[in-house]
This record gives sequence, structure tokens and C-alpha cells, in this order.
Amino acid sequence: VPRRSPPRSKAAARRSSCPIAGALDLVGDKWTLVVVRDLLLLGKHQYGELAASPEGIPSNVLAERLDRLIGAGLVAKARYSDRPPRYRYTLTEKGAQLAPVLGALADWGERHLPGTRRPAALRRAR
Amino acid sequence: VPRRSPPRSKAAARRSSCPIAGALDLVGDKWTLVVVRDLLLLGKHQYGELAASPEGIPSNVLAERLDRLIGAGLVAKARYSDRPPRYRYTLTEKGAQLAPVLGALADWGERHLPGTRRPAALRRAR
Repeated sequence: VPRRSPPRSKAAARRSSCPIAGALDLVGDKWTLVVVRDLLLLGKHQYGELAASPEGIPSNVLAERLDRLIGAGLVAKARYSDRPPRYRYTLTEKGAQLAPVLGALADWGERHLPGTRRPAALRRAR
Repeated sequence: VPRRSPPRSKAAARRSSCPIAGALDLVGDKWTLVVVRDLLLLGKHQYGELAASPEGIPSNVLAERLDRLIGAGLVAKARYSDRPPRYRYTLTEKGAQLAPVLGALADWGERHLPGTRRPAALRRAR
């Protein structure tokens, strides 16, 4: 008996037609936008650099998030060394356009969370 | 033997001093900002209204998120009927100031997620 699962388009997989809910389907977790922050604002492009951020992302979570971001077209992965194999991660234009989301979160956090301070790169971009 | 757990201030509980990571500690999940959207933009203030949103939030998740938002000072809960007991949920000023985060997510989603369309209330507020 062949296994059949109904085909689901990306749109059908969304929770609703709301673009806020749809965006949160992709980036609505505690780690994804931290990785986007590192790629966009902190000049980190190698796996080891991303893994070394002060938030201490678990390695399996980082690998899963990068794969998901690549699958959604927000991140590109390019091999820059064959021996040993090394990869460079960069945001696509679609991924880079999350900048205003990061900016709004940083504004809110800085205003309401005592002791936080936006990264220097975000202060310059303000 | 008394159980002792080291006291952790709110700041110490944060992953880092980054306001983006700190904001995501509070709202970095797929449901919280959907609830904030309903309260801020869609005029929903009762538990049943929030539970009836098209995204289909599970009731236990909605109850947990409301409790967390109240605990963090983003939502206020007021009893408006004694028999039967009924409550009204509203955003505090701190919670309402997440509006630019919602706006940025809606902008990004509408641009990049085919088939999504921002709620009418967000179109007016654009």
C-alpha cells in the first residue's frame, strides 16, 4: 500500500493568512533572530563564530536553525575551503530585510529591560 | 533539609546583555506575539475571543502565555463580572510598545510570504 500524505503547499501550511503569524512560523522562537542578528549586525559568518556567541546556543539547535533558514531562503551557505571543508553563511536579501524586526526588538528591549544594551553595530545603524 | 536555590535576578536570568535576546526571552515564540496582535490590533480582550483566533492557539498555551505576559508586566487582567467570573485582558503601556515589532513582522511577512495579508487594523495603522 503506497503511503499517501496530502500535498501541502507552503501557504496551506501556514496557521492563517496573517503575515505576522506567517513570519512567526519562520522566526518565532528564541534563537532564530539571535542567529540573524549575528549574521546581519555582528559580522559573524562561520559556524564556530555563531556557536561562540554569548547566548550559548546549543550546537544542535544552531545546526537546525541554519538548515531551516537555508530551506526558507533566508540564509545562503557557501563552501570556501575544501580541505578541511569550511562554509560561510550569509543572509540573502530576504533574510537581510528582517533588519527592521531586529531594530524594533532592540528598541523595545533597551527601553524595558534594565541592564541590556544594544550591540555597537546596532547603535551605529540607529 | 531546606531546599535552597540560588536567587536569580531578572537581569541575571537573561541570556546576555543584548536587548534583542532579552526581548526574545519574553516574546520569542510562535504564539506570544499573536496574542499581543489580538489585544493591540484586533480589539480582542476576553479569553474566549483570544482562543477563537484563526491560528487555533491551544487553550493551555493561551492560558500559559497570558500568565507569563501578566507576570512580565505586559498585560493587565481585570475582573469585570463576578457571577460568572469574567476577566478582561488589556496590554499595559509596556506591552503596547511592542507595536513596532508587530508592524515590522507584518511588513516582512506581507512582502515575502505569498498569500498573507495584514489585518485591516494594521493596514489603517500603517
